[in-house]
Parts: sequence; structure tokens; C-alpha cells
Amino acid sequence: MSESLPFSRVHIVGTGLLGTSIGLALVEAGAQVTLEDQSPSRAALAAEYGAGSVHTAVSREHDELAANVELVVVATPPDVTATVVSHALAKYPQAMVIDVASVKSSVVDAVMASASPDDSGARKRFLGTHPMAGRERGGPTSARVDLFTGRPWVITPVSDTPVELIGAVSALIRVLGATVHTMTPADHDHAVAVVSHLPQLVSSALATQLQSVSEDALSLAGQGLRDMTRIAAGDHELWAQILQHNAESVLPLLDHFRNSVDSLEKALHAASTEGTQRALAEALHAGASGVSRIPGKHGGQSRFATLVVVIDDRSGQLAALLSDVGALEVNLEDMSLEHSPGAPVGFVELSVSTEVVDRLAADLSARGWPIAGESQ
Amino acid sequence: MSESLPFSRVHIVGTGLLGTSIGLALVEAGAQVTLEDQSPSRAALAAEYGAGSVHTAVSREHDELAANVELVVVATPPDVTATVVSHALAKYPQAMVIDVASVKSSVVDAVMASASPDDSGARKRFLGTHPMAGRERGGPTSARVDLFTGRPWVITPVSDTPVELIGAVSALIRVLGATVHTMTPADHDHAVAVVSHLPQLVSSALATQLQSVSEDALSLAGQGLRDMTRIAAGDHELWAQILQHNAESVLPLLDHFRNSVDSLEKALHAASTEGTQRALAEALHAGASGVSRIPGKHGGQSRFATLVVVIDDRSGQLAALLSDVGALEVNLEDMSLEHSPGAPVGFVELSVSTEVVDRLAADLSARGWPIAGESQ
Repeated sequence: MSESLPFSRVHIVGTGLLGTSIGLALVEAGAQVTLEDQSPSRAALAAEYGAGSVHTAVSREHDELAANVELVVVATPPDVTATVVSHALAKYPQAMVIDVASVKSSVVDAVMASASPDDSGARKRFLGTHPMAGRERGGPTSARVDLFTGRPWVITPVSDTPVELIGAVSALIRVLGATVHTMTPADHDHAVAVVSHLPQLVSSALATQLQSVSEDALSLAGQGLRDMTRIAAGDHELWAQILQHNAESVLPLLDHFRNSVDSLEKALHAASTEGTQRALAEALHAGASGVSRIPGKHGGQSRFATLVVVIDDRSGQLAALLSDVGALEVNLEDMSLEHSPGAPVGFVELSVSTEVVDRLAADLSARGWPIAGESQ
Repeated sequence: MSESLPFSRVHIVGTGLLGTSIGLALVEAGAQVTLEDQSPSRAALAAEYGAGSVHTAVSREHDELAANVELVVVATPPDVTATVVSHALAKYPQAMVIDVASVKSSVVDAVMASASPDDSGARKRFLGTHPMAGRERGGPTSARVDLFTGRPWVITPVSDTPVELIGAVSALIRVLGATVHTMTPADHDHAVAVVSHLPQLVSSALATQLQSVSEDALSLAGQGLRDMTRIAAGDHELWAQILQHNAESVLPLLDHFRNSVDSLEKALHAASTEGTQRALAEALHAGASGVSRIPGKHGGQSRFATLVVVIDDRSGQLAALLSDVGALEVNLEDMSLEHSPGAPVGFVELSVSTEVVDRLAADLSARGWPIAGESQ
């Protein structure tokens, strides 16, 4: 997959995590990159990291830059993305423009609406995109050249979008290491509403309950609660913007979600007062069916077995364990380390193919690793 | 902590994951263990695994056993736990009896109610307990001798419970490697309702939404959605029992949770129609505050920094990375492996103390590991 970079002069507006990471990757790929940010110090910081050079608007240099830029990447917060894209389309009349905001319909609609009806040039030079990468927080200091490696990167062409633009942006995305997913803006927004925005709201609503819980109760918290609330710790101001811009897709999902909560509550109430568990078990089973639809590591829907191994809480133990797993020629599908409040041990959960789990358990046990659980 | 085992003859009723694991650990600690299960083949399987010997009720042997058992461990599903405990109290009049069900008030109340008012002996020989261990599924084949190592194990004494019984059971729990948490039955039920049962229902309600989502949308799923729905894949029949028995604690929490969902929905609706983000940002911030109250690895509330490293999807890579982390003398607080549908790479998220994260990033980078992200 040694594709050549389709744009050699790129201007990036917004040097947060995404903009800076794109700059780093493009510089590495050989592009000439200029940077711009509302905060001059943030742009300077991104330049120091090696993401490009800061664009200072001195007239002659500016004219030269404007005449030569081939691609403008708008990587600003969603609130201002459409405005910045429209400015860029006007300011760099030869350049293509893409954005990387987490919401697409509101951005694409606003950009198209702001182009005058006969301004087909502007309408044909813009493509909305969204890399599903990183934690969407942290600014330039969190940026990394490999941020997009292996991640899905959605592009949302509309009927006006020329195939040449789609081809060039797709090639750029592949050079950055990501995989191209093509969707309409509306399909994108609905997809991220269900896989990202609804979970974010649900995690927040659940985590909110912890504000008033006793420390004794929290001391019993296991991995389940930690997993369910992790994303609620994210940047709440950025999330408020994202959610606002995708409210149209998210609100109906929140409504469906509440219906499921209501069904569970009704079933639990019936179980409690009438002693009938069937409705409750069926409602819980519906959840398990939903989980089974999430694609696995390689895009399939196969199921894996889990092995829980106990390790001492010392550096080196995990490496020793995984070295043994590697020596046994078993490929890990997933793994996680579980906390044990107050205890000097940790639990490593290894997910492997169901075909090898029994052999792995026996072999690790023979090598002296305590096995604390196995499930298929 | 080399404590001696306070019971040398133990009878276990119910040889699922918990009963069999307790048997394995007690046999290893030197106890004489007999096993009993409604399913003779399951009891035989547990015995084959080394969890004890199967108790067959031939009269003389049975009398001898009944006269000599010092502790009966009831490890049956919650629906029948109280009944089995009451039978055990009558059948083994010299023995102490504990149960290990995930709900406590309903079990303890039913046991106490079934003892006749003057039967203070029976009331003083029972102690309700709950080990917070394992995935509560899988039967004897999932059992492991180290299942309880480092886990919290709650005991729920009542006013009648003699201190000697509390002391002996606490010693037993410590011999099995767990840490003793003392609570009232009601406090226990409220605690597990919030840290375990509510998250279970929320995860199910969220996962239920995935039943009708397109595969295109699901192909964008990241770690957030996976974490939020993992526990929804659990044993729905067992969970229906657990939830039914703790409905009194869970229903009010579900109500509070729905209020939080309603608040978020209202704030999102206002953001969407009025363009105001403050209420939404504040509601999301409340979630972040809740998350920060979950104790960390060593029971504290310190925060850790995260480093994301890219690895090839080959066995041995993870071990090589962790070997380097170990060589740099950095202690991992947490780690997880993130999936990348369709991509030949994986992402390893390393959580380390904020003090060492920058050094670790630089050192790993110098050793050739691509760093895909860092956040504090």
C-alpha cells in the first residue's frame, strides 16, 4: 500500500490533537505543511512538534501561499467548522478543502448553503470527513504521527462532489494509515450517534449516580463499573458541542434507550411483585443479542474465549506472562488488566480463539501462572 | 499473612463457579471437603477437578459426615439459597453455615424468619457473605483455585451473629486470598445495586439498541461502545434472579438514573433548539465528577496518564513492548488492547503515573515504538 501523497502543499487550520497529528503525518509523508490557529501560541507549539511551519500573513508571502496551497484541512471545534471551511474556500480559490469534525450534516449543509447558487466551484472543492481517532482531547501536545493508523476515517461526499476529489482525499487518508469508509452525511451522523454519542450520554448519566454513593460502596467497584463510566471522564465542553450539532440523530436514540430502560424497570418491578422472571430474562437477553453484533478485531463476528491470569503487581510480570503467551504461539485477540483495590495482585484477562483457550490455560498453568477463571 | 484455616471439615452445596473454586482453594489449604449438587454429574465434575469428594447419602457415612462437618458453604443460585441454608442449619446441627449469593437482605431475612423464635442456635450459626469474584457464570469448568485472590469478599453479620463466627469466617476468607468487607445486608445490597446491578441494566438497555443498527454503522464502533456493552453479554437467567432479589435497592436507582437521562435529554433539546450549551456541558461535567470518585488500583483516587502505543497484530509484539516498559522500570497501573476492525495493527493503552508518562513516551519512542496518543 505504498500510495503517493496526492497533495504536496497543505494548509491546516486548527492545531489541536487532530490538526497537529495530521500535520505530523503529512510532514513525514513529504508534504509542505503550513499551520494556523486562533491561538498563535498553540500554532507555534504544533510547529515546534514538527507538524509544519506557522503561516504569518505578511502580504507577499501570503499571496504566494494562497496561490499554491492544494489542500486546506479544517480541524477546528465543530461550532466554527462550517464558517472556517467557507472562509477557506473563498481565500484559497484553487485549493480543495476538507474538515475533520465529528458531526457532518450540520457542517456540510452549512457549507453548501453558504456557497452562492452559481458558485459551483466552491461546492465542488469541499469534502466532509471524520477520522474516528484518538480521544478527541488534549491539544497539540497529545498529537502523534500515527494517530490514524488502522482507524476508520469516514468521508461524506454529496451529489456535487467530483470523483477526482473523492479519489484524492481517499488516497490521502490511506497515506495517513487509516481506512476509508464512505457514507452520506446523514448516515454518518446516525452511525456516530449510536456507536459514540449515545454511549457517551449513557455513560455520563450512569457516572452521575456515583456522586452521592458512599466510599464503602465504591470500594466494591469492579471492572464492569469502570468500563461503563470511563468515557464519561472526557472533555465535557467539546462533547456538549458535538452532541448539540448531532441532536437530531441523538435525541430519537435517547428516546429509544429510555424505552428500553422503562421496559427493564417494568420487568424488574413485575419480577419483584409477582415473582415472574421471564420478562426480565428476555429483556436482558435482548441486550446480549445486541452485543453479539459488534464486529470483532478483524471485522468478523466470531466469539472469543477469555482466560483470567493472576500476576503480581510488579513491573515485568505482565511482560513475562505475554512472553510466555507468545512462546506458546497463541495470538491475543484482546487483553486487559483488572484492578484489585487494596490487593498486591492484578488480573490479566486474555481473549483468545475458543479453539486454543483450553491448551493455553493448561500450558500457562504448567508454566506456573495461576489461572483465576476461564469462560467461553 | 499466613493464617491457619479455621475449619477443617467443610461441606459445599452447589458446585458452580463459586462453589467449585471455594472447594479447590480449601482443598489446597488442607481442608477435608465434601461436595453436593442438585446435578450429580456437576458434583462429580467438580470432584474430578479436585474440589473435594462427592457426598453420597449412604446412612452410616452420612451420619458420620453430618456429625463432623464444621462449615457448610451454600453456593446455589439466589432463588434457592435461603431454603438450602435453612435445610443445612437443620441437617448439620453442629456446623456453621455461610452462603455466597450476590444478594443479601432477602437471603438473610428469609433464613432468620425460617428459624423458630427460640431456635437461637440456628440464628447464631449462619453468616451471609458475598465474594465479588469472577464473572458469576461458567459452572465448575470455569472454577479456579485463585478466583478470590485480591477480591473484596463482603460479610453481612446481624445483631445475633457471634463475634467468634465473624472471626472464623473472616480468617477463612483471608486464607482464600480475599479481603474482608463488613456491611449490613441492606448496605451490601445498596452497594452492589449501584456498583454492579444498575450498570448491568444500563449496559443491557444500551446493547439492546444495537439490535437494529446497520453493519456500516457498527463498523465504526470503537472501544467506548465495546466497554459500555461488555457486561450485557452475561448470563441473563442468573442476572434475572439476582436483580429480582435486589429489586428494592435497584428500582430507586433506576429511577434516579432515568432522571439523569431526562436531564441530559432536556439539556440536549435546549442546546439544539436554543443554541445554549451550558446546561448540557454541566450535565456532562456531573458525570465526570462521578467517575473521579471510583477508587484507583491501590484504593486511592489519584489520576493516571495514558499512553497509546501502536503494535503489529502478531504474537510476541505485546510481550516485546511490555518487556521494554519493564526494562524502563515503569509500573503499569492499567493497560488494555484496542481493536482495529480491518487493520493489521493494534493499540495498547498504557496507564502510568503522570510523573513518568513523558519519560516513558520518549523512551519507548526512542526504542522504535510508534506512540499514537498521550493524555493526562
